[in-house]
Amino acid sequence: MTYARSVLALCLPGLTALAQTPADARASLLGSVDRQAPFWTAMSRRIWENPELSFRENASSALIREALRDAGFAIRDRAAALPTAFIAEWGRGAPVVGIIGEFDALPGLSQIDAPERRPRVEGAPGHGCGHNLFGTASALAAIAVKQHLEDNRLTGTIRYYGTPAEESGAGKVYLIRAGLFKDAAVVLAWHPWNANQADDNPWLANINVKVRYKGRAAHAAAAPDAGRSALDAAELFAHAINLLREHVPQETRMHYIYTQAGRAANIVPDAVEMSVIVRHPDLATLESIWERVRNAAQAGALGTGTEVAVETVSGYANYVPNATLRDLIDANLRRVGGVAYTAEERAFAEAVRATLGSSKLPPLEDAARILPPKPDLLSASTDVGDVSWNVPTGHLLAATFPPGVPLHTWQSTAVAGTSIGQKGLVVAAKTLALTAADLFHSPALAAKARADFDKALQGRAYRSLIPENAKPPLPVQ
Amino acid sequence: MTYARSVLALCLPGLTALAQTPADARASLLGSVDRQAPFWTAMSRRIWENPELSFRENASSALIREALRDAGFAIRDRAAALPTAFIAEWGRGAPVVGIIGEFDALPGLSQIDAPERRPRVEGAPGHGCGHNLFGTASALAAIAVKQHLEDNRLTGTIRYYGTPAEESGAGKVYLIRAGLFKDAAVVLAWHPWNANQADDNPWLANINVKVRYKGRAAHAAAAPDAGRSALDAAELFAHAINLLREHVPQETRMHYIYTQAGRAANIVPDAVEMSVIVRHPDLATLESIWERVRNAAQAGALGTGTEVAVETVSGYANYVPNATLRDLIDANLRRVGGVAYTAEERAFAEAVRATLGSSKLPPLEDAARILPPKPDLLSASTDVGDVSWNVPTGHLLAATFPPGVPLHTWQSTAVAGTSIGQKGLVVAAKTLALTAADLFHSPALAAKARADFDKALQGRAYRSLIPENAKPPLPVQ
Amino acid sequence: MTYARSVLALCLPGLTALAQTPADARASLLGSVDRQAPFWTAMSRRIWENPELSFRENASSALIREALRDAGFAIRDRAAALPTAFIAEWGRGAPVVGIIGEFDALPGLSQIDAPERRPRVEGAPGHGCGHNLFGTASALAAIAVKQHLEDNRLTGTIRYYGTPAEESGAGKVYLIRAGLFKDAAVVLAWHPWNANQADDNPWLANINVKVRYKGRAAHAAAAPDAGRSALDAAELFAHAINLLREHVPQETRMHYIYTQAGRAANIVPDAVEMSVIVRHPDLATLESIWERVRNAAQAGALGTGTEVAVETVSGYANYVPNATLRDLIDANLRRVGGVAYTAEERAFAEAVRATLGSSKLPPLEDAARILPPKPDLLSASTDVGDVSWNVPTGHLLAATFPPGVPLHTWQSTAVAGTSIGQKGLVVAAKTLALTAADLFHSPALAAKARADFDKALQGRAYRSLIPENAKPPLPVQ
Amino acid sequence: MTYARSVLALCLPGLTALAQTPADARASLLGSVDRQAPFWTAMSRRIWENPELSFRENASSALIREALRDAGFAIRDRAAALPTAFIAEWGRGAPVVGIIGEFDALPGLSQIDAPERRPRVEGAPGHGCGHNLFGTASALAAIAVKQHLEDNRLTGTIRYYGTPAEESGAGKVYLIRAGLFKDAAVVLAWHPWNANQADDNPWLANINVKVRYKGRAAHAAAAPDAGRSALDAAELFAHAINLLREHVPQETRMHYIYTQAGRAANIVPDAVEMSVIVRHPDLATLESIWERVRNAAQAGALGTGTEVAVETVSGYANYVPNATLRDLIDANLRRVGGVAYTAEERAFAEAVRATLGSSKLPPLEDAARILPPKPDLLSASTDVGDVSWNVPTGHLLAATFPPGVPLHTWQSTAVAGTSIGQKGLVVAAKTLALTAADLFHSPALAAKARADFDKALQGRAYRSLIPENAKPPLPVQ
Repeated sequence: MTYARSVLALCLPGLTALAQTPADARASLLGSVDRQAPFWTAMSRRIWENPELSFRENASSALIREALRDAGFAIRDRAAALPTAFIAEWGRGAPVVGIIGEFDALPGLSQIDAPERRPRVEGAPGHGCGHNLFGTASALAAIAVKQHLEDNRLTGTIRYYGTPAEESGAGKVYLIRAGLFKDAAVVLAWHPWNANQADDNPWLANINVKVRYKGRAAHAAAAPDAGRSALDAAELFAHAINLLREHVPQETRMHYIYTQAGRAANIVPDAVEMSVIVRHPDLATLESIWERVRNAAQAGALGTGTEVAVETVSGYANYVPNATLRDLIDANLRRVGGVAYTAEERAFAEAVRATLGSSKLPPLEDAARILPPKPDLLSASTDVGDVSWNVPTGHLLAATFPPGVPLHTWQSTAVAGTSIGQKGLVVAAKTLALTAADLFHSPALAAKARADFDKALQGRAYRSLIPENAKPPLPVQ
Repeated sequence: MTYARSVLALCLPGLTALAQTPADARASLLGSVDRQAPFWTAMSRRIWENPELSFRENASSALIREALRDAGFAIRDRAAALPTAFIAEWGRGAPVVGIIGEFDALPGLSQIDAPERRPRVEGAPGHGCGHNLFGTASALAAIAVKQHLEDNRLTGTIRYYGTPAEESGAGKVYLIRAGLFKDAAVVLAWHPWNANQADDNPWLANINVKVRYKGRAAHAAAAPDAGRSALDAAELFAHAINLLREHVPQETRMHYIYTQAGRAANIVPDAVEMSVIVRHPDLATLESIWERVRNAAQAGALGTGTEVAVETVSGYANYVPNATLRDLIDANLRRVGGVAYTAEERAFAEAVRATLGSSKLPPLEDAARILPPKPDLLSASTDVGDVSWNVPTGHLLAATFPPGVPLHTWQSTAVAGTSIGQKGLVVAAKTLALTAADLFHSPALAAKARADFDKALQGRAYRSLIPENAKPPLPVQ
Repeated sequence: MTYARSVLALCLPGLTALAQTPADARASLLGSVDRQAPFWTAMSRRIWENPELSFRENASSALIREALRDAGFAIRDRAAALPTAFIAEWGRGAPVVGIIGEFDALPGLSQIDAPERRPRVEGAPGHGCGHNLFGTASALAAIAVKQHLEDNRLTGTIRYYGTPAEESGAGKVYLIRAGLFKDAAVVLAWHPWNANQADDNPWLANINVKVRYKGRAAHAAAAPDAGRSALDAAELFAHAINLLREHVPQETRMHYIYTQAGRAANIVPDAVEMSVIVRHPDLATLESIWERVRNAAQAGALGTGTEVAVETVSGYANYVPNATLRDLIDANLRRVGGVAYTAEERAFAEAVRATLGSSKLPPLEDAARILPPKPDLLSASTDVGDVSWNVPTGHLLAATFPPGVPLHTWQSTAVAGTSIGQKGLVVAAKTLALTAADLFHSPALAAKARADFDKALQGRAYRSLIPENAKPPLPVQ
Repeated sequence: MTYARSVLALCLPGLTALAQTPADARASLLGSVDRQAPFWTAMSRRIWENPELSFRENASSALIREALRDAGFAIRDRAAALPTAFIAEWGRGAPVVGIIGEFDALPGLSQIDAPERRPRVEGAPGHGCGHNLFGTASALAAIAVKQHLEDNRLTGTIRYYGTPAEESGAGKVYLIRAGLFKDAAVVLAWHPWNANQADDNPWLANINVKVRYKGRAAHAAAAPDAGRSALDAAELFAHAINLLREHVPQETRMHYIYTQAGRAANIVPDAVEMSVIVRHPDLATLESIWERVRNAAQAGALGTGTEVAVETVSGYANYVPNATLRDLIDANLRRVGGVAYTAEERAFAEAVRATLGSSKLPPLEDAARILPPKPDLLSASTDVGDVSWNVPTGHLLAATFPPGVPLHTWQSTAVAGTSIGQKGLVVAAKTLALTAADLFHSPALAAKARADFDKALQGRAYRSLIPENAKPPLPVQ
């Protein structure tokens, strides 16, 4: 640990030179978070008990929104015409510092808070990604910062982005299109994780589509020449994808399955559906690869006399790390420290980990440590990536889950309802609050973050992989 | 019609020269069928009301079996160890003339006797192939022939083969393996159809298999190189099939679908299942093609580092028409005549045909006509084909369904429960009875049929496409 | 033979009812052919000794043309702007009866007139298709018919079509496009063969193309993602062809090779060339299949980010047999009789046949027999097929080659220079002359042939598979 | 440069602590090289003027061998039974330090020493890889080291490996198999290059094979079902390779072309040949990938009823850098310095570079600089890689070619015959001699290199990709 700090000291002469939050103000801010934490951890449990899917987070969104309104924030409801999106704002003028919150759940992950697989309601949703902790921690941070601005008579605006549908639908893309990030100097976000770390990872840009071929059915023995096989088309498309593999950058990932591939062997298949995902660490590169994959999908139809339709399910930009914000977050996270388990929590965590059947788990003590930022290639994606192409974005991972517990599992769902997850919530809230405070105390930091942003993107334009004219998949009223 | 008869006269000097059933004996035989018909048409309705799937025809089989026992036939129960197979026999010595009966239904075709789609029980089986008429007509013929043998003091044995599982499982293959067709001089069978015709068609030999690939799952973005894709294997196999098409006889048919092809796009598929059918008009040729397709299935595994398992679902030999028996049946069918509708039946038939949405239906009057035998290539298969490789076999089609109504539809199911279907049953029973009688009156006919049989097969050996060691898919007790 | 004639008598009441050439006129015509035969067989030898390739038949064409001019025919030189095409005509008014002559040789078949492989000039062309006999026999027939018209004071026009480039380039297509067959009532043609037969075979329509893919080269180890593989494109196209096989009529043939497929394994191939042939017994069907194959070729490019160019090498329509002309030719061929060998010719023919290494040769005596017309599917193609879509066309095969000797071989080349080939020339000339004479004696025959033509094509329009704007591949002047 | 040295100082405390060659001994050694250089540069020119292909380097090998014999080295002729391999040795006992020499040329690169493309003999071989400089420089170093051992009364053995067939055939593999590297403590080698650098690059392991499919020819229109297409097999194999791409480590390279792919489109291809290369940075991984590719090649045959034969053309292990030797070489190379051009050489170099048509060339001055070692992934391969799996191996790159000039070009061939190449020869000889001297002065260095070797390979066993029973492709005597 000593080593890592000393490296930090060496590498960040610029940062330390800039004015930051004074030590006493910092202490006062952390105290403020601690005092309000019980209210927000209780809310995280309520949201956990009533998990709502993407674009359907009516109750979860309202709970957070109304608490922010009660705390004095001005509310912009139904942001970007999304029923469960909102913006809560306090203060005046620049800099505008945003904090992002999410609150949607995942299908099929219903689970009680026990270290064994036990759905509350069979087949129902569950908070396997910990968004019940995410939205609440961010709101707690925003309110503490608001208090801090008042106490220290600082200029600027603290803003909470209530963003729906991260799991499916890429809700933030619509907020970006509505221009709601345009005036933000910096945006901060975090994600529930199984470790504590200032995030320097380039989460993959990805695009997820359904490819549907339509042919003409015929009896496969009596009149195969009258048929046009949609399965032929899919196989030809698949072959083209596999031929492409040699001629795309090697970090690219293209994978597919057939979700529907014929009704009966003696009928020429007239309808076939594939699920296809394409990923690359860089949005612009992915865009050019995706163009080629789409051509390959059309080649499948052209070569077999069938028709093709491509429906975008979701599309995420890669996350563009920001060196200034990464280092600020890392410094603050080290001030806050990780998650320390009680004996009971430790027992629970071990019981959960035992169900993973893995012999290569990191030590449980890692929950209390802070990992150094390191640009590993993640295979996951987030629409915070899209935000990071539009405004300097800082991102934090906090150990809401025991080391080694993967997201999107019944295990992570179970923990997200316990005090373990809630301790991670507080770590995140404190780190976000300290970082926002730094930005208000030293406006030069935002300028430095902007310079990093410009350098990282070098003029590359953001364009979402979701088609311009696509409507968000809102539930029918 | 005159023309057809004269052609017949020209072409069959041999047949007419042989002694056949005298005209008065023939009249007496037809009268016998007419008298017993009501009992058997009623039974066909009972079986129609209680459709039973392949190898599960317990009640249907018992009804026919016990009526034959009551008529004085000796019963061999559970023939070839199949619970619903039996053999009923009367008489002594040569020639042994067999008549085949079937009684199994099809899944998902439940239907009432109305000219609109209306299942009796949603999702339940139905007699869309008319086997409720098939087994009963054959039994009616056998009993009438037994009476005829007694009345005319003829030597020989009349035998009824109660054969289960024609639709799925190829029950007759097991009876053949048990040697139960070895001592038969001739076997007669028929099939419910939408026309009347002595059958000269080479029904396709076919083999129907499941091909299952097993690979190794892995996260498709994080560790695709750790995965072995069962879908890759299936695609490679499919490619091999499509390459084979150029190098098999052009009458071959090979078709496939993917019944399981991946769980989620971000997981390398570890289990994929295909349904594959291969057909050819000739069993021996099919066998050599099937050998190559099976190699191609293994190539799919070998080329992708996966494992393959091939399970035979069913395998049918082609039907080998027998010229002597075809001509005998044709002559007798013309004596019996086709199906004449009442006004009510005509209205029902037209109502059913109207639901087919086809503008190219043959005239309804065709039900009353007899089509000349003509070797069209059928795209259907039957395990009577397997019998025809082992013993000279005559086959008849009778118009139990209105012209143009396809088998295996709700329309054919509906008609099979009405007087239209039952009239076809009587036409079949009479024609079978007359033909069997001819064979007893003139033993030279069986010798002639045997000569045709030898010539058609020219020493080619029968080998079922169902592996020797395969067990019939009997229901678990 | 008796049997065949009686069948003919039975089947052709219409023909016999029509007035035909009187017996004495017939005898006189045959005598005329016999008298002039030595001049033309000698010319056939001269052409055989100086074989000229397609569109380069300058000497061969001139020899025939000038002999026809000398005989009083009016000459239309450079027909359809093809230097070696011409039309020679005598007479006035309808009916116009055309006789087709060809005279081009094949590359690489140079051979002396010995029963062993021995090129005159290594690598030079040779008359392996017997066109040295073809053009001369037709001219001999035309001149004999001219004499017959004069002698019998018959009205009408006898026309000789001197057509270049049958082997490669489909010269007749350009004559058709120039409207030169429009006013012909009937056209007669023949082909050197290994049997005598009025032709009832539907020679295959076919199209022969080069498909060229252009990609982008790159070092296959250092920068494969910078490459766009033309070989990928070709493989994808090939896969599409193989997928198409199931969904075209089973008589279709599609075959291809790769004539250029990469320079070195460590370079991504930027240029690949395929040779592709597609065939079907019917031109219109072939056209629709070819449309799909061309789409598949484009799919290869679209799916791999490469470019494609398709160049038509040649395209032939199928031959549409004409029942009236077939029967006329059959009757006249039987009058003329086949080819009878001398002892020396027999020895030569046997020596040639011995080099074929085949144990299944037809008897040598077949050269003297006339085979009954029978519509076997030939795998060969001819641009006489294109003519047959535009005017009623009669076609004859004459035994210029011993039974069993295939065309396009050194064996057929050798025989085409001997008295065996020349005897076949005379058989062809006589049969053509008799048939033309019938058409002049009985104009109703041409009307009957026209009715057959209309019935066979049923309004289907002719469209050559050679693109409208393609120029004939003439040698550069 | 200062920076680089200081880093070096920081990183190599171990090295500097070890005794090395004293400064005066070093000066004397360098003087010795300078004195003998004219003899060896002249020989390099002679070899350049008479370029000999792999396993045919009779004259080139003899020149070097006899000069070493004259210098007092003991010669082992025809090492490993390869006519052009030899070992020259001087001294006694441990440590044995080897220096590798190569001398084979490349096909088709004949070129004079001018800055424009001009073959000496059209189509003849040329020294485009600079092996005329390679074998001579190494011999010069060996002789200087021998003198140094005598002068300084040092114990140990200096050994020269005369290794044929690096370009094609992997000659060193046979020397390894003969056990000729077993007793060497350390082996040193170098390669002509366009820069000066101690080599830390993992040259790719690769395997280069011919895959030949044998099918059965048939007329593609008349009897395609009688054919078994070798082209089908190749396409199926290619498809399998492309499917594999997703499931091998992303650094893998697999590329192929079709060197023979059908004679004529109307014949089912019975013989197809592919050239296939597979590469990976690690030999053991490549071995397991190659196993799968070979299975895929067999799947191509199995799926199409054809036969396959795989012939290994060459197989190279990756190069395993050795940290101790890399640092020794780097230090010595910096002592020696790079290549300084005269005005004339500079003009020649610029003229050559101008022909490359590249706008991104490094500055010409780079020839005089020393690049820091850096593990870039090279796309090239060498059989020095195989040696490095068997004995600690140090490798040097010296600027025999102007910066930016690629190997295996007419440009590199031209320069290899000039004073520019010869200056690089001297740089290499000096650096090799100094490094060998260090190893004799400080035996602990060899032990340290051995420890690095053990650590890098961690017990992984060497197995050449060339099959055990393969014979070297020697010219027929």
